[in-house]
Amino acid sequence: MERRNDQRNRPQRPIDYLKNSVSKIILIKVKRNRLFRGLLGGFDEHLNLYLEGTSQLFEYQDEDGNIREEHEDLGNIVVRGDNVIFVCLATPDD
Amino acid sequence: MERRNDQRNRPQRPIDYLKNSVSKIILIKVKRNRLFRGLLGGFDEHLNLYLEGTSQLFEYQDEDGNIREEHEDLGNIVVRGDNVIFVCLATPDD
Amino acid sequence: MERRNDQRNRPQRPIDYLKNSVSKIILIKVKRNRLFRGLLGGFDEHLNLYLEGTSQLFEYQDEDGNIREEHEDLGNIVVRGDNVIFVCLATPDD
Amino acid sequence: MERRNDQRNRPQRPIDYLKNSVSKIILIKVKRNRLFRGLLGGFDEHLNLYLEGTSQLFEYQDEDGNIREEHEDLGNIVVRGDNVIFVCLATPDD
Amino acid sequence: MERRNDQRNRPQRPIDYLKNSVSKIILIKVKRNRLFRGLLGGFDEHLNLYLEGTSQLFEYQDEDGNIREEHEDLGNIVVRGDNVIFVCLATPDD
Amino acid sequence: MERRNDQRNRPQRPIDYLKNSVSKIILIKVKRNRLFRGLLGGFDEHLNLYLEGTSQLFEYQDEDGNIREEHEDLGNIVVRGDNVIFVCLATPDD
Amino acid sequence: MERRNDQRNRPQRPIDYLKNSVSKIILIKVKRNRLFRGLLGGFDEHLNLYLEGTSQLFEYQDEDGNIREEHEDLGNIVVRGDNVIFVCLATPDD
Repeated sequence: MERRNDQRNRPQRPIDYLKNSVSKIILIKVKRNRLFRGLLGGFDEHLNLYLEGTSQLFEYQDEDGNIREEHEDLGNIVVRGDNVIFVCLATPDD
Repeated sequence: MERRNDQRNRPQRPIDYLKNSVSKIILIKVKRNRLFRGLLGGFDEHLNLYLEGTSQLFEYQDEDGNIREEHEDLGNIVVRGDNVIFVCLATPDD
Repeated sequence: MERRNDQRNRPQRPIDYLKNSVSKIILIKVKRNRLFRGLLGGFDEHLNLYLEGTSQLFEYQDEDGNIREEHEDLGNIVVRGDNVIFVCLATPDD
Repeated sequence: MERRNDQRNRPQRPIDYLKNSVSKIILIKVKRNRLFRGLLGGFDEHLNLYLEGTSQLFEYQDEDGNIREEHEDLGNIVVRGDNVIFVCLATPDD
Repeated sequence: MERRNDQRNRPQRPIDYLKNSVSKIILIKVKRNRLFRGLLGGFDEHLNLYLEGTSQLFEYQDEDGNIREEHEDLGNIVVRGDNVIFVCLATPDD
Repeated sequence: MERRNDQRNRPQRPIDYLKNSVSKIILIKVKRNRLFRGLLGGFDEHLNLYLEGTSQLFEYQDEDGNIREEHEDLGNIVVRGDNVIFVCLATPDD
Repeated sequence: MERRNDQRNRPQRPIDYLKNSVSKIILIKVKRNRLFRGLLGGFDEHLNLYLEGTSQLFEYQDEDGNIREEHEDLGNIVVRGDNVIFVCLATPDD
């Protein structure tokens, strides 16, 4: 599972692209319409994730029709990978 | 599956981060909107969990719109890992 | 899968904690909101369970708002492990 | 998967307890609220089942509130194990 | 996976009982309440099925409360095994 | 996984029957009530499918109660096998 | 998993057909009715996908009954393969 050619070749496994987001803030969309934001502390090939300083985000429309966001602080969490739909990676300049 | 370098290197598998929460109180969010709080007695790579002194928590809004919590004592339980969505780890000073 | 050090070390796999409940009464919460109570006769690493003298429990509110319990006797059953959410272990003095 | 010590030791795998019900009538509760009754002709470790003379049972309340049972004859069937929730074993004197 | 003792011993795996239904008409109950009838052309250990001259059956109540059946011809189909709930085998004299 | 005796013996795995439909038009019924029609370009043992010139078909009743069909062109697609319920094979003279 | 004969033989695994869409725009239909459009950066045999410059697309009918599309920019994402229903490949002249 370990790849030795990261420096030499462009990585090809989707999971490998998470490496550049370690220690950065990412967004994770999870089944049952959950959305988490946290600092990626670790991951594995099942997409199990360790997140630090995590918030669960809730979007709703206020009375004027504006989309607003609330969040609940969860601290450091381990997400079981089979719940993940997709991960938004950190942008290079994050 | 056994890692020998815990002392030397930062662990990288998300599951490894559960080790620091053993014998501490954690929160577990489970499918079908269940929430458990208990002392982490053991875990494995499937995220099967052994919890001591477990409470299942129920949140509801009272008549004044305040969110309140009730709980049901379950004692010592074994949770099958495939039901787990995420685990909130204990904070270092717990 | 066999562990030889049960006597010497504290077991670490959550499944191992079921051993102390063999031949004792346990509660099992199963998907689709089922609850079973029976004497644990055997289990395996998938959490397949063999239960003796099993009752399926049904909770409901009576006309006065009290939560009451009915049960249906099922005798000796084998539960397929992938339906299990959690198992409440027997207390030491059961 | 073959156990040689059936005569000498008490079997420990839940699946093994099905052996005493072979050629006897059992009840099988299946997902999507199905209930089958038939003679157990064979099984495997996935809980795939071969049943002879099978009836699918339907319970309903009649106009007087009594619970009544209808059934549909299915003959000999093979049930795919992943649909099984639990199996009620035959009683020793069946 | 190949069994050499079919002639000598009674087969024990539920899947093996499908062999006697090859080239005969069987009924297959599939998740999402589908029912197929066709000639069993082949199967494997996952309960993947190859059926010839297949009809999908639809049952409904007519205006007089009689249960009637319509069908849609599907020709030769391959059913993915994980959708199968149970298979009604052909009777010996089919 | 390769079978060398296709010419000599009748194939027995259901998946093998897809070979005769390669480069022919097939229908695929997929979970969540989707129906695809396309030219089978390739498949594997998971029933992953590569389809060329694919249309997704939608059936509906018009105002006169006639069942009509609309379709959406998808071009060349790869279907993940675990979504497939069944595949209608091409008829020999297609 | 690596195929050496891509140049010589027509590839046969459905997954292999994704190779020609690397660095091109593809559409991905995901469970729970999600639709993504992005540049395919990488994939693996589970259909895990790495997408760059991804938009999630939402279709709706406006007041005049026209089907319109809105989108939400997600940036670079990793999609967990078990959520994918199908992938629309890039056309050769994309």
